[in-house]
Amino acid sequence: MEKSKKHIPFEISITMLEAIELDIRNKNDSSLLMQFSELHYADIAEILDELNLFQATYIIKLLDSEQTSDILAELDDDVREKILENLSAKEIAEEVKELDTDDAADILSELSPERKENVIAQIDDKELVADINELLEYDENTAGGLMAKELVKVYETWTVAGCLRKIRLQAENVKRVHSIYVVDKANKLIGRLSLKDLLISKNETKISDIYIPKVDYVHFNDDDEDVARLMTKYDLEAIPVVDDEKTLLGRITIDDIVDVIIEEAEKDYQLAAGITQDVDSEDSILALTKARLPWLFLGLIGGVGAAIIMGNFDSIIKDFPIILLFTPLIAAMAGNVGVQSSAIIVQGLANDDIKGSINNRLIKEMFLATLNGVVLAVFLCGFIYKFWDQDIQTSLAVSVSLVAVIIVAGIVGTFIPLFLHKRGIDPAIATGPFITTSNDIFGILIYFIIAKFILNI
Amino acid sequence: MEKSKKHIPFEISITMLEAIELDIRNKNDSSLLMQFSELHYADIAEILDELNLFQATYIIKLLDSEQTSDILAELDDDVREKILENLSAKEIAEEVKELDTDDAADILSELSPERKENVIAQIDDKELVADINELLEYDENTAGGLMAKELVKVYETWTVAGCLRKIRLQAENVKRVHSIYVVDKANKLIGRLSLKDLLISKNETKISDIYIPKVDYVHFNDDDEDVARLMTKYDLEAIPVVDDEKTLLGRITIDDIVDVIIEEAEKDYQLAAGITQDVDSEDSILALTKARLPWLFLGLIGGVGAAIIMGNFDSIIKDFPIILLFTPLIAAMAGNVGVQSSAIIVQGLANDDIKGSINNRLIKEMFLATLNGVVLAVFLCGFIYKFWDQDIQTSLAVSVSLVAVIIVAGIVGTFIPLFLHKRGIDPAIATGPFITTSNDIFGILIYFIIAKFILNI
Repeated sequence: MEKSKKHIPFEISITMLEAIELDIRNKNDSSLLMQFSELHYADIAEILDELNLFQATYIIKLLDSEQTSDILAELDDDVREKILENLSAKEIAEEVKELDTDDAADILSELSPERKENVIAQIDDKELVADINELLEYDENTAGGLMAKELVKVYETWTVAGCLRKIRLQAENVKRVHSIYVVDKANKLIGRLSLKDLLISKNETKISDIYIPKVDYVHFNDDDEDVARLMTKYDLEAIPVVDDEKTLLGRITIDDIVDVIIEEAEKDYQLAAGITQDVDSEDSILALTKARLPWLFLGLIGGVGAAIIMGNFDSIIKDFPIILLFTPLIAAMAGNVGVQSSAIIVQGLANDDIKGSINNRLIKEMFLATLNGVVLAVFLCGFIYKFWDQDIQTSLAVSVSLVAVIIVAGIVGTFIPLFLHKRGIDPAIATGPFITTSNDIFGILIYFIIAKFILNI
Repeated sequence: MEKSKKHIPFEISITMLEAIELDIRNKNDSSLLMQFSELHYADIAEILDELNLFQATYIIKLLDSEQTSDILAELDDDVREKILENLSAKEIAEEVKELDTDDAADILSELSPERKENVIAQIDDKELVADINELLEYDENTAGGLMAKELVKVYETWTVAGCLRKIRLQAENVKRVHSIYVVDKANKLIGRLSLKDLLISKNETKISDIYIPKVDYVHFNDDDEDVARLMTKYDLEAIPVVDDEKTLLGRITIDDIVDVIIEEAEKDYQLAAGITQDVDSEDSILALTKARLPWLFLGLIGGVGAAIIMGNFDSIIKDFPIILLFTPLIAAMAGNVGVQSSAIIVQGLANDDIKGSINNRLIKEMFLATLNGVVLAVFLCGFIYKFWDQDIQTSLAVSVSLVAVIIVAGIVGTFIPLFLHKRGIDPAIATGPFITTSNDIFGILIYFIIAKFILNI
């Protein structure tokens, strides 16, 4: 069936960009305002990411701060940073006032300390300043760093009717109402109330009679990835954040968690691919080089190490150069097996899926590697002996080594992430070049030792 | 600051498992019921994943179907499949009736056609059967396959007061109310109404006066990953699904999208690591072997190919065996560069971040690779010449090849995912062993040709 057209996601066309650039050049503001009035702020942010700094700033200054605040929050960090440099403290303050407190704090935290103070000084809403200052205190990778101060809360002593009245007031500042949090006199979280329950209850009912005392919550100091795991597991769309006394501080919504999940997945993927920093394909060549060179350098050192090891086996080089032809094969297999087994462990750790002891895990991997290794070695041995017409000793030297190397690579790939995790280090760093390189060296050393032994030299 | 204890996510202890196993053995149902009454269904599912089939089935039969339906929906696919085999069609029907239509359809779709019909025959609610049968028709990787039929909809002709009354009725069947969808007489989606707007409007207001005509929606045939991108980009918590006539069919909620995002990220990560099927560390050795062996086999063939290529350069093997010592280095660098550049492209494609032509992209990668390559080659050349005391020709042969190999690997790594994407193939398949293996072979071929030329043999 053909897909209907309307719902196809927004896509930037070159024609559209050219029209916008022309309008900016001609200062045709009315045409620009018309074009942008129809667009979602996330789409406008995408367009601004494509324009140059002058053009992007022009659009931001042209549009209304209600719209631009959301656009700014959505922009790529580096584009936003540059645009903010072109705005006055007063202009930034106007934007910040329109945003939810969490986005406001995120943007302010990117400014220099001095600039930040100037912007905050321009905000006259005392309560907002207090909220933002509080949020700026939290570590960005914790629940406190993710939460917003906007939420709907009711006191247990209220009635449904009174509650609806108060909620109507509070709700005007809250973009989306998820759960309603119930607190006691001291502002301590004691439960929640779903909007649905509120809608289907009688007006005179007391909140204390209908609220649900079982409520999931997190501490402001909890790690953002733990919050993501919790919300995903329990299918929560919002979660309240409390302090040590269970005082209700704010709430985290699922859209922020989706960002955490995506970022985390991208980071792990990049680490596995040997990219050290968060880069994307649109970044400058210098930024990309900085992100890629360190692991390549590690690979180079590994390669030199492997060459030095081989250089020490004179007898093999002189009498059995055919052994040297299989070093890339051995190294590649060691690398592949290491990456496979470490990736499974890293993913299992991320999903809290790894049960049982390290020893059991290593024994399982040993069986697995042996099974894989023997299958591959039989094939390889047959090939070298039958089709390449080598003597049985050479064929055995290569294939027996292959089994040994695969087993060691599997064990190293399993052990390193588990070990790092135990030490509190992100195991994702272990996959990719780190495992590949160490396995290359190990693999070749094992290969040459076994070959030397089997060839009896 | 020390974290408070209460909010630490649920964790299964061995003591807890042993107590449960003992209670099952002694048929101590009251103790079991007490233990499980306190737990969230997601936690119970985690426990059942740890028990054996007999024990898990015992618990499912013991608990009330309101609780067990959610537990079943949450279980690992393979555990659920086995438990369902132990239940009668009537028992499964009881579970299915308690679930949201999307989860109900997911569970039914895992049954054999005959079993499925038997279960559906046991459901007396005609409307539910129609809904489930409709959902079973959709492809599982489309919006239709993700959506649930439960939603809250109002007609444009209603008033706020009438609306609240009707919503109270509808809401009892809907776990969470997100947006309220506004339809015309023909059930065509014409807009949405936020609960918040409904709460802050006067009772006598007409829906047609307050609804928002701008509403994002997807077609039932849209790809689930496109839906995920759309909902993430626009920060949507639910999205309605329509057919060609814009008839409102159902809605997708963000928790289902979070699952799509996580699954997709895991799949890409596994592909990059050379694992072909969706496995986790707890799977059987056989399942893990089946997922890992194919790529390893590819790697083996690549290694044999590299050996055959090298075998053809007799003169190098005989007179310059030192060249052979650097083949693992060259192969490793080719593999690493290829994985890095392909990973950046794959991620860019996933984020819709790749702009401009393939040619520009390749030129950029060429510059980048040259920059990385020259830095690494200068270091390598100095090392071989100075510290390893080799003549300048050998040093040059290795380092010039390194630059060439890195450039070619970068181009291959950039081109292949872009090419696959153009052909409509998932580019993620290109990273990992596929790129590594082809780059190994290319790299070694280039290395030996250049070495032969520079060494003048």
